[in-house]
Amino acid sequence: MICGVKSMSDKNKVFFLICDGLGDRPLNELKGGTPLEAADTPVMDELAYRGITGIMDPISPGLPPPSDSAQLAIFGYPFNQHPGRGVIEALGSSIPLKKGELAFRCNIATVEEANGILYVKDRRAGRIKGDDAKEIEKLVNDIGEIKGVGFLFKHTLEHRGVLVLRGNLSRHVTDMDPHKVDVPVAKCIPREDAKDTLKARKTADILNEFTRKVYFTLKDANVNKERVKVGLPPGNFILIRGAGKLGETESFNLKWGFKAAAVAAAPMYRGIAKYLGMDLYTVPGGTGLPNTDYKGKILKALELLERYDFVYVHIKAPDVSSHKGNWKEKIEVIEKIDGALENILDSNNILKVVTTDHVTSCKSKMHTGDPVPILISGPNVFPDNVKRFCERTVYRGGLHRIKGLDLIPILMNLTNRSIEFGVQLTAKARFYFKSDYEPFSVQ
Amino acid sequence: MICGVKSMSDKNKVFFLICDGLGDRPLNELKGGTPLEAADTPVMDELAYRGITGIMDPISPGLPPPSDSAQLAIFGYPFNQHPGRGVIEALGSSIPLKKGELAFRCNIATVEEANGILYVKDRRAGRIKGDDAKEIEKLVNDIGEIKGVGFLFKHTLEHRGVLVLRGNLSRHVTDMDPHKVDVPVAKCIPREDAKDTLKARKTADILNEFTRKVYFTLKDANVNKERVKVGLPPGNFILIRGAGKLGETESFNLKWGFKAAAVAAAPMYRGIAKYLGMDLYTVPGGTGLPNTDYKGKILKALELLERYDFVYVHIKAPDVSSHKGNWKEKIEVIEKIDGALENILDSNNILKVVTTDHVTSCKSKMHTGDPVPILISGPNVFPDNVKRFCERTVYRGGLHRIKGLDLIPILMNLTNRSIEFGVQLTAKARFYFKSDYEPFSVQ
Repeated sequence: MICGVKSMSDKNKVFFLICDGLGDRPLNELKGGTPLEAADTPVMDELAYRGITGIMDPISPGLPPPSDSAQLAIFGYPFNQHPGRGVIEALGSSIPLKKGELAFRCNIATVEEANGILYVKDRRAGRIKGDDAKEIEKLVNDIGEIKGVGFLFKHTLEHRGVLVLRGNLSRHVTDMDPHKVDVPVAKCIPREDAKDTLKARKTADILNEFTRKVYFTLKDANVNKERVKVGLPPGNFILIRGAGKLGETESFNLKWGFKAAAVAAAPMYRGIAKYLGMDLYTVPGGTGLPNTDYKGKILKALELLERYDFVYVHIKAPDVSSHKGNWKEKIEVIEKIDGALENILDSNNILKVVTTDHVTSCKSKMHTGDPVPILISGPNVFPDNVKRFCERTVYRGGLHRIKGLDLIPILMNLTNRSIEFGVQLTAKARFYFKSDYEPFSVQ
Repeated sequence: MICGVKSMSDKNKVFFLICDGLGDRPLNELKGGTPLEAADTPVMDELAYRGITGIMDPISPGLPPPSDSAQLAIFGYPFNQHPGRGVIEALGSSIPLKKGELAFRCNIATVEEANGILYVKDRRAGRIKGDDAKEIEKLVNDIGEIKGVGFLFKHTLEHRGVLVLRGNLSRHVTDMDPHKVDVPVAKCIPREDAKDTLKARKTADILNEFTRKVYFTLKDANVNKERVKVGLPPGNFILIRGAGKLGETESFNLKWGFKAAAVAAAPMYRGIAKYLGMDLYTVPGGTGLPNTDYKGKILKALELLERYDFVYVHIKAPDVSSHKGNWKEKIEVIEKIDGALENILDSNNILKVVTTDHVTSCKSKMHTGDPVPILISGPNVFPDNVKRFCERTVYRGGLHRIKGLDLIPILMNLTNRSIEFGVQLTAKARFYFKSDYEPFSVQ
């Protein structure tokens, strides 16, 4: 018999909001201000006033993290437990990934050839989507096997996609996506830290050959001729990155003892939630874009908090606006999030966390390594003197500067869910509480 | 010949006060305030005014530490140098522990049987003490050997005790104490990280058998019949935890170059001091309880500072009051500590440190993972703008947020005892100064 331990009456619940890409850098257009500073955010400010604030390095100071690594860190999973971005994307796109299969995150992109070298002109092919993207998906899947390795390309949201390889391959290969424009596509090669060099070499060769075929298949395809005709950049390449394989990981519920649910629309965040074993929910109007149903997501979270301990809401919109450099839209998006948050402001006994996984700058249109603003409001929190939630105020907050990996232990503590460090209650001698010990019987 | 290096003239000394369990959480009874805020503490406030303040995570953010791990960390010893709580308790209770013997921290507890399962009703058997506890000690020691393994149970302070096992056994077994009430006693099993699984299995079996005998010995014992008759919970079980064996550790004096003394009354803190090789002192009125001789302890420290570099004073009382949930007593205890501190306020050339090893909440009656308040006052310190020593003010202090393991290096620095990082003066290439290098001879 394995025995559960009863809850303490004051084990509070957690509402956990990630406003993807929320922070920013001083913008000339805003006279040195940021979208978060320019936005009218009475609810976030009230939460900050009632709560504790601070800055957080999602990974470590100065490191600009991608959303996947940052969110895993914020959920308490260090980088060595990352299965690779491709796996997260595949899970989030409901691609039935089997153990041993190799998955990549892809962008449908625009390249230009010069002396046989492919130069990246647009990493998102003008944010290609809809029928054009579907047609490209079909053409790529018609390429067929290479050296006995099967390929499955699945278009997901906008220009995004996932590529799965079926064969005895290595995940230790480099990205072909240079993450920049006007530079050449990178050749795929074995990573320097690969211990399976031969297999990695074979994998890289197959990927170089496959993407060569992708280019020659797509460059003269009708869909792209039509796009060029109307002034749109052609989707003539698939930039791959984030090689990954499904591994074993401990679920969020088991690791931390929170029964957790997620409300997310964009594939990668759905993938994170699935990878961590959170129950995944959507709302009809959730799009992963600035036109998402903000209020619907917050209301869904409130409903889920009736039967879950921890509800993670992901809102992608601020990141989307930032990557476009559209600071006006970013301000609007932040104000819409703030308006929706009013529904949870006065919910008692719920610890409310508002933060982001990384800063996305409207100026560089990229993630930065700046620390992110964070607020925690609710039971057991000592309010600090910060009354406004923005980049320029929260550094004075009572949380000071924390790391992403510290966040869940802090929330465990504030919701009375931690047990004493060093308590050796279960076979695994965990630091944190597990309700899975064997009772002592005298019979 | 090993050669000592002469002191620099301004190598100051350290008065190091641990007010066990000092911090707290917002209490409704104090309108959201804490005992430290409610207490009248002119001396601590003056030390804060003259000094630097901050918050400290004894282990790491959010982790509620037990006193033993926290104090080891604060003295600069990471968790992998922890010999096990049982060893600390045994040393502190002057039980002559030999190398290889296995020691546990114990509570005399009250359990209730249902279908052979023992449910914890009171982890401290109504804080049993005196003759009742001594009688239980005698009965437990009469049980005798199991499979050639001898047992020694020694009652220490109130409900506390130490169990020592003599035989070829493993320390890699789990706690039987679930650290909660109304849940079953946990069966002792090998820890999952045990590398000596067979020996750990044998150890666990013997412990389960021994504690079964303890229960059947105590449940109908006269001492417990008498206790029940007068409405007291029976001491009918021994909850064991913190398996440990004496290991090798570098003394505090050798590791940091401070000649250190400790003034402590409660067994565990005496154990910490002994384990670290500090010279241990007591005062006649030191009890480890709220009725201790506060002034006597501080005066003893002042006297010891004449001939020691570092004097650690441990006051258990705030923790005792907090575990009882008695916030009124906690306020009184804090005020008594403050009164006693007046004797050291104006001592020149002594660096004064006031902090705690963990927060103990009067609400949950347990340790929390909140950061602890700390002040450092004396030579070489830049005073900050914090004029009041309490949870709500010190987060604004100049120390910001530090970790327990950072504290001794900070004190080494302020007392001019550190040498530059990377200097390899001794064979061990230590980061910190050791006066044990061999002189160069030209003969």
